[in-house]
Amino acid sequence: MRTLEWDVNNQNLRMIDQRLLPGELRFIYCNTAAEVASAIREMVVRGAPAIGVAAAFGMALAAQRSRAVNRPQFLQELQEAGETLRAARPTAVNLSWAVNAILKMVMESSASLSELKHLILDAAQCLADEDVAINRRMAEHGAQLINDGDTIIHHCNTGALATVDWGTALGVIRYAHESGKHVHVLVDETRPRLQGARLTAWELQQYGIPFDIISDNAAGYFLQTGQAQKVFFGGDRMAANGDVANKIGSYMLALAAHDNGIPVYTVVPTSTVDLTLAHGGLIPIEERSPEEVLGLQFQGQTVVPRGATARNPAFDVTPARLLTGIVTENGVIYPPFEINLLKVIKTSEGDQE
Amino acid sequence: MRTLEWDVNNQNLRMIDQRLLPGELRFIYCNTAAEVASAIREMVVRGAPAIGVAAAFGMALAAQRSRAVNRPQFLQELQEAGETLRAARPTAVNLSWAVNAILKMVMESSASLSELKHLILDAAQCLADEDVAINRRMAEHGAQLINDGDTIIHHCNTGALATVDWGTALGVIRYAHESGKHVHVLVDETRPRLQGARLTAWELQQYGIPFDIISDNAAGYFLQTGQAQKVFFGGDRMAANGDVANKIGSYMLALAAHDNGIPVYTVVPTSTVDLTLAHGGLIPIEERSPEEVLGLQFQGQTVVPRGATARNPAFDVTPARLLTGIVTENGVIYPPFEINLLKVIKTSEGDQE
Repeated sequence: MRTLEWDVNNQNLRMIDQRLLPGELRFIYCNTAAEVASAIREMVVRGAPAIGVAAAFGMALAAQRSRAVNRPQFLQELQEAGETLRAARPTAVNLSWAVNAILKMVMESSASLSELKHLILDAAQCLADEDVAINRRMAEHGAQLINDGDTIIHHCNTGALATVDWGTALGVIRYAHESGKHVHVLVDETRPRLQGARLTAWELQQYGIPFDIISDNAAGYFLQTGQAQKVFFGGDRMAANGDVANKIGSYMLALAAHDNGIPVYTVVPTSTVDLTLAHGGLIPIEERSPEEVLGLQFQGQTVVPRGATARNPAFDVTPARLLTGIVTENGVIYPPFEINLLKVIKTSEGDQE
Repeated sequence: MRTLEWDVNNQNLRMIDQRLLPGELRFIYCNTAAEVASAIREMVVRGAPAIGVAAAFGMALAAQRSRAVNRPQFLQELQEAGETLRAARPTAVNLSWAVNAILKMVMESSASLSELKHLILDAAQCLADEDVAINRRMAEHGAQLINDGDTIIHHCNTGALATVDWGTALGVIRYAHESGKHVHVLVDETRPRLQGARLTAWELQQYGIPFDIISDNAAGYFLQTGQAQKVFFGGDRMAANGDVANKIGSYMLALAAHDNGIPVYTVVPTSTVDLTLAHGGLIPIEERSPEEVLGLQFQGQTVVPRGATARNPAFDVTPARLLTGIVTENGVIYPPFEINLLKVIKTSEGDQE
């Protein structure tokens, strides 16, 4: 079962509603690009690769539902849908990347409108299948970094749920496990949305990988007392120099690992690299609703006093200097990242030609 | 109103039940040393200075309730009570410190048993009053480090509730505010027990100090984007070299501040310094119940999947190299801490002679 999938019978997009996990496994169906954008904004679907593919299906829905009678009108509608989808969440570059890929294909094609509708849906399907294939390749490359017996600290959710299937950083851990290595995962709960405690813990249970949930605050303790050997997380947008925006808290986790000589790896498809940005300070950081911080309950009680306010940035930037390596579908790359990132991306584009 | 206070009418110890705040302000009354130990363990009362004074009153209760007919029997009972109290929470040194101070006084005194009972209660009262006085002096020293307009990141709760009254790190911020400086506090929610979101936010509301609650993960973002100018926290035990054990997460917070050139201050009475430990790696770190991590609810749902397990260390050690200064009742001290800590502690002991 995929996190998101085109429903052939209903001709719409079916997604697992991740807000309800692990309590309940329920699907929602999106019929328009606007519904997809809203599902992305509300985090029905989340994870950079997954929202990239969701956006591609959003474009396919815009095309399918279009009543445009000529090419300029059709293009205009697609561009508007693309804008809506891109605006849903600003940090992950995969959204723009997928929307732009579809728009480029349409603009370069001389096919008829009805042919284009099929071509766009095929392209979205392709991106979905490609996501799974890329994740498998990253997993294979990344699993070589894991030793038998490693305890790994993992941040947020980067598993099958964050992608179409298989996962990025969690996919690496899963691959190591399935190759027979003994791994133990310390699962950062990942406040405020608790993707670690809710989703990663649930996935690890499915895979039979042993784990303990920890508060995000506790990662430093395990690193400073020698109880963890690796740190793995994903990435939402990487600048040309290797600085990577990822779920809030990744930066402090990477600092603590680095301070104790523990390797830190980010696992990102090359589509996550935004070569137009020289460094991470230029990546737009989404600030989400304060309710995500304030809505907490503990042992049946509301936690915060009435009238309290909150700030809620959803991402931070881990500087490239804190990363030991970057796992991509084209292999693990090491510093100097400015140079080596460019090499794997060129290789990747070469592959596709 | 003090966090903990001897109730003259009932001849017992009255404490605010901090587990119920901010929803409800309710007191509990302890009649025996064992009840005090249990209240400390269950975090009815928490904060290194507060549990130190609570332990002193625990010793007073052991003395008051004693039916010993001779001095050895009395001493034996007090020593047993001291053991129980010391074992309640291992990390904060203030507990042992207070218990030892009482035991030393008893052993050096030639007073009768009934006189001793009064003397012990007086000593506990003295420690309580001294805690408030020491906090005021720390606040005065520390407030000089705060500039008008500063945004300060604060971890855990170090306010009146963590002490008998006034507070340590939060006392410094309060003093700066009352001196007319404009300060804004970014309140780390402080998982797993959420002392920041529950207690610090509540205290700041009482004092009229503007604040926003943030997830612990978000501190790094505010530091790396220049939105915070200082970091302040307390301390539960400081080694002779200045390494300080404090609420879990302090270490990663200090790392993030240090990485961005933002000053980090710990505010600790000299009683927090344990000269018997050469460095922070020797400080015993309490690991508490996994339920503190697993018991989380969010927007009405239990968060973690059934059967999940957790690890829950309650403290970590911030190495002295990450500290800009240590605020004590005898002034702010700067590196080299090994030397300068010894100076203020000698001064402090000199004062008491």
